[in-house]
Amino acid sequence: MPQTTSPTFPSWPDVAADLIAVAAGRAPADTVIKSGTWVNVHTREALPDHDFAIRHGRITYVGPDAGHCIGPETEIIEADGRYMIPGLCDAHMHIESGMLTPAEFARAVIPHGTTSMFTDPHEIANVLGLEGVRMMHDEALMQPVNIFTQMPSCAPSAPGLETTGFEITPEDVTEAMTWPGIIGLGEMMNFPGVTNADPKMLAEMAATAKAGKTIGGHYASPDLGPAFHAYVAGGPADDHETTSEAEGIARARQGMRAMMRLGSAWYDVESQITAITEKGLDPRSFILCTDDCHSGTLVHDGHMNRVVRHAIDCGCDPIVALQMATLNTATHFGLEREIGSLTPGRRADVILTSDLKTLPIEHVIARGKTVAKNGTCLVDCPHYDWADSARQTVNMARDLTAEDFEIAAPDGTTEVTCNVIGVVENQAPTKALKRTLPVRGGLLEPDEQQDVCQIALVERHRATGGVVNALVSGFGYQGPMAMASTVAHDSHHMIVVGTCRTHMAKAANHLRALGGGVTLWRDGHEQASVPLPVAGLMSDRPAREVADLAQALTTAMQDAGCTLNNAYMQHSLLALVVIPELRISDLGLVDVRTFEFTDLFEDT
Amino acid sequence: MPQTTSPTFPSWPDVAADLIAVAAGRAPADTVIKSGTWVNVHTREALPDHDFAIRHGRITYVGPDAGHCIGPETEIIEADGRYMIPGLCDAHMHIESGMLTPAEFARAVIPHGTTSMFTDPHEIANVLGLEGVRMMHDEALMQPVNIFTQMPSCAPSAPGLETTGFEITPEDVTEAMTWPGIIGLGEMMNFPGVTNADPKMLAEMAATAKAGKTIGGHYASPDLGPAFHAYVAGGPADDHETTSEAEGIARARQGMRAMMRLGSAWYDVESQITAITEKGLDPRSFILCTDDCHSGTLVHDGHMNRVVRHAIDCGCDPIVALQMATLNTATHFGLEREIGSLTPGRRADVILTSDLKTLPIEHVIARGKTVAKNGTCLVDCPHYDWADSARQTVNMARDLTAEDFEIAAPDGTTEVTCNVIGVVENQAPTKALKRTLPVRGGLLEPDEQQDVCQIALVERHRATGGVVNALVSGFGYQGPMAMASTVAHDSHHMIVVGTCRTHMAKAANHLRALGGGVTLWRDGHEQASVPLPVAGLMSDRPAREVADLAQALTTAMQDAGCTLNNAYMQHSLLALVVIPELRISDLGLVDVRTFEFTDLFEDT
Repeated sequence: MPQTTSPTFPSWPDVAADLIAVAAGRAPADTVIKSGTWVNVHTREALPDHDFAIRHGRITYVGPDAGHCIGPETEIIEADGRYMIPGLCDAHMHIESGMLTPAEFARAVIPHGTTSMFTDPHEIANVLGLEGVRMMHDEALMQPVNIFTQMPSCAPSAPGLETTGFEITPEDVTEAMTWPGIIGLGEMMNFPGVTNADPKMLAEMAATAKAGKTIGGHYASPDLGPAFHAYVAGGPADDHETTSEAEGIARARQGMRAMMRLGSAWYDVESQITAITEKGLDPRSFILCTDDCHSGTLVHDGHMNRVVRHAIDCGCDPIVALQMATLNTATHFGLEREIGSLTPGRRADVILTSDLKTLPIEHVIARGKTVAKNGTCLVDCPHYDWADSARQTVNMARDLTAEDFEIAAPDGTTEVTCNVIGVVENQAPTKALKRTLPVRGGLLEPDEQQDVCQIALVERHRATGGVVNALVSGFGYQGPMAMASTVAHDSHHMIVVGTCRTHMAKAANHLRALGGGVTLWRDGHEQASVPLPVAGLMSDRPAREVADLAQALTTAMQDAGCTLNNAYMQHSLLALVVIPELRISDLGLVDVRTFEFTDLFEDT
Repeated sequence: MPQTTSPTFPSWPDVAADLIAVAAGRAPADTVIKSGTWVNVHTREALPDHDFAIRHGRITYVGPDAGHCIGPETEIIEADGRYMIPGLCDAHMHIESGMLTPAEFARAVIPHGTTSMFTDPHEIANVLGLEGVRMMHDEALMQPVNIFTQMPSCAPSAPGLETTGFEITPEDVTEAMTWPGIIGLGEMMNFPGVTNADPKMLAEMAATAKAGKTIGGHYASPDLGPAFHAYVAGGPADDHETTSEAEGIARARQGMRAMMRLGSAWYDVESQITAITEKGLDPRSFILCTDDCHSGTLVHDGHMNRVVRHAIDCGCDPIVALQMATLNTATHFGLEREIGSLTPGRRADVILTSDLKTLPIEHVIARGKTVAKNGTCLVDCPHYDWADSARQTVNMARDLTAEDFEIAAPDGTTEVTCNVIGVVENQAPTKALKRTLPVRGGLLEPDEQQDVCQIALVERHRATGGVVNALVSGFGYQGPMAMASTVAHDSHHMIVVGTCRTHMAKAANHLRALGGGVTLWRDGHEQASVPLPVAGLMSDRPAREVADLAQALTTAMQDAGCTLNNAYMQHSLLALVVIPELRISDLGLVDVRTFEFTDLFEDT
């Protein structure tokens, strides 16, 4: 049971004497919730006619009648027979994916009943290193809900294949394990490193294990042979990269927790939950998470409530689905005595809902305080004072010109067969495509008819002036346009995709001026933008504002001819050199099937 | 995940590189188990045709074919289709109850497939304090199986009601939490202390929680009202004192683990397992344990294998029963990544059995080595070099005489109605009886016709010369006899029960000479004895020898007229002033319903 808590929130032992006094009836509770149906995730029961008593933000009594805990100052909340369920836990997620700071992310998800998040600030780690992780961690601890931080493990994600703003070292991990809000190691994405016993990866995992914390996993390969077994033997304790029932079951059988995700663009629950609903496996090893959610999803669709509802819609028993978003998660992180169930001593994170299947989030209590009602956040989510170093991170040597995006074709060619990154609708993996493209004036040209654009990776951490040019297919862009983003997993340089080199230069230069974000240019003008001043990744504006800007951006992408769902996320993942098949990095075009660089031109 | 391991056994991170190499097929395993049926306690499945590979005593590969892990030196064990189940865990137990040292206890239970024990050396703590706990802890860590130590919490068990050899303080607990083999706090028996927020008890629990370890519980009261809720709010995480389905369910619902015990004299599984088999509750919060086993049980009936079989006989699904003796226990103590399932990285504690229902323990592997086959222990269980302080613990001021056991009746009485301790067959609680006894020559006399003997508590820790006399009913002794024992839970003074004061003195003096143990005298001669030289509690002779001596003692008790099952244990529990209703201590007769002293005579 790691002592991971906000420094300002007392531990159970700190307040045990008072909790005992309330439960015994010798002292009044701060709050009593009366006459609800207790959803018990330990025994898997719904028990009508129960009261809760709360003191110091912790549950101190759950029983048939908390009358003996009520004093003149005790606040009474009437559950009126509604279900009382534990606050929902997101077992693995990246706050940066919402393009929001932790405070604004919390403000967005609290009305959805999320009261605990296990967040891996991997994105900022690539931009700002350990210092960035600490800023995220510190803002997390300021919030009225529980935001536990997983120390990022892989910056760079794929050493040798990309250059990040900063690198994370085993020494960084060792230091982070001493911070109060660190719950474990973030997803160990460098699975070839683990399989090959890379001493650096092993040292990070050892530092985590020695601190008694949980090692997050990420094995994004369909290979379930010796490489998979070697990864498991290395120590990662969970995996959220599985997409099929067989993959999820393989993780659970090997003693890992299988995390099933429903993010804005991940739909991995339906295909795996049959392990429970059809195969009848013990659900304790299965956990729900989001991994990545856009601000729009948070504003319009929900967060973990959306995931739990979806699991129920897939045929899962509602209490089993809730276990996978509460107790299973708490157990996994060694926090069973702290969160994840409505039982004495735990943080009083409670949702009142009148229906266990549709799960309307009517009243959210976190640490004993009402934080949201009927979709409205009623609590302050304090902002961290982000340092200048976090707000000025687009570090380019100079403005770019169209020439920076030129791709010289091999001498004397009129067309060239190229390796093209193929975006796949609704999936993170790309396809390695071959396309034959025209050459004009010695330069390779994008080809709207084949839906092939240019893509460029613009270095933005060390002002090297580096621009790597390649090709991408699948966006469907028509006419002169370009879109640029400093959200460019995982190294978070700048990705520019366009049909026109002049527009690409304009978009890139605009982001430089803006200090980071996303911008779409077309017909010579900016059509939409989302400023992301914090690390070029996050906005400290409310989720609704960011969602509206992001929606405008999506509309602008559609206006430019893009028909993909989640087109923005697809854009931002094109440099993710740990997920197959083909990606771009600041060092070149990467074949992630082999973890080797490959040439743009097929024949060279 | 506490780093609780033998200093001589490498941690997973210590050997991760080698485990990875074997799983990947780059290096040979030490041992491969071929072609078994993998009992997977994570998913609750039995999966035929699986191989295990083992390296450095840890599992490194589980899959369909470990051929790639086999080198010329690899030992091959053929499972021949048999079930491969995790080594069994006893979640709460007292080694001293077997009257054996940890080494001899381990030697007795290894052939039964017990490979992990969570032991609370509470008895020796009362006799020798922290030093005694350390000796037990150190011998535990020398063994070839996993003996985790729970730091005793309550010596004395009921402060103010008894005087122990040593007291355990919060400072002791804080120190013990730094020892390598300490897994948590032993059963918090002082439940009135917790309910009343006794600062000492709270400090012990806080020290445990702050060390990230598990607080053991013991709430031995049928009261499920505010007192129970106050106890839960205090922090204990489990309870093994429940005897009914309702009590077990109450613990599980409140977020504690309900430990169901089948000891030599505890039969608490059948009455509680219906929570799972009939009520269909999630079994994850239920755990099996023994609490107390005699050497005879270990030699003739088994250990945790007996408990699991019994659970299956009660209608429990075999894999669910195994979960309650493996994974559930590991999870409870934060050891999920170390023991409790047959998955990579965990200690290779494996049982081969050809039948999942009758559970014959055919082959036991602990930490990768064969330790038993077909009931025979094949491994050395090293003895600790017990200090003289641990071998000379019967510290009486002088030999006693019959006069020491005289009970003066109130002046002028010819008979007196007395409060008599009533032994209840097959139960730990006693009854507070009233019996009217004759007075002869001013002295109260025991009465065979009413089955009332004398009982005396002889002080043996500080040579105070104290003897407390009282009355007990239920043994059925006939004719002049006495039985004395230095096993006298929990303060472990000496309990002498007899029909004759002369015999009582003889028995007590004999134990003084022997350095502790149990002895039965009748018709002027010793009939049987069990020498227990270590702390007056344990023998370092093999279990079979001790069991034979104990059997001879039982026969002698029967010959003396006693018809109770487990008569010896009933004898040794008569000073246990934490279990209702009436008990004896060195300070007097105790009514455990009120935790107050009471008079021997009803009217005074």
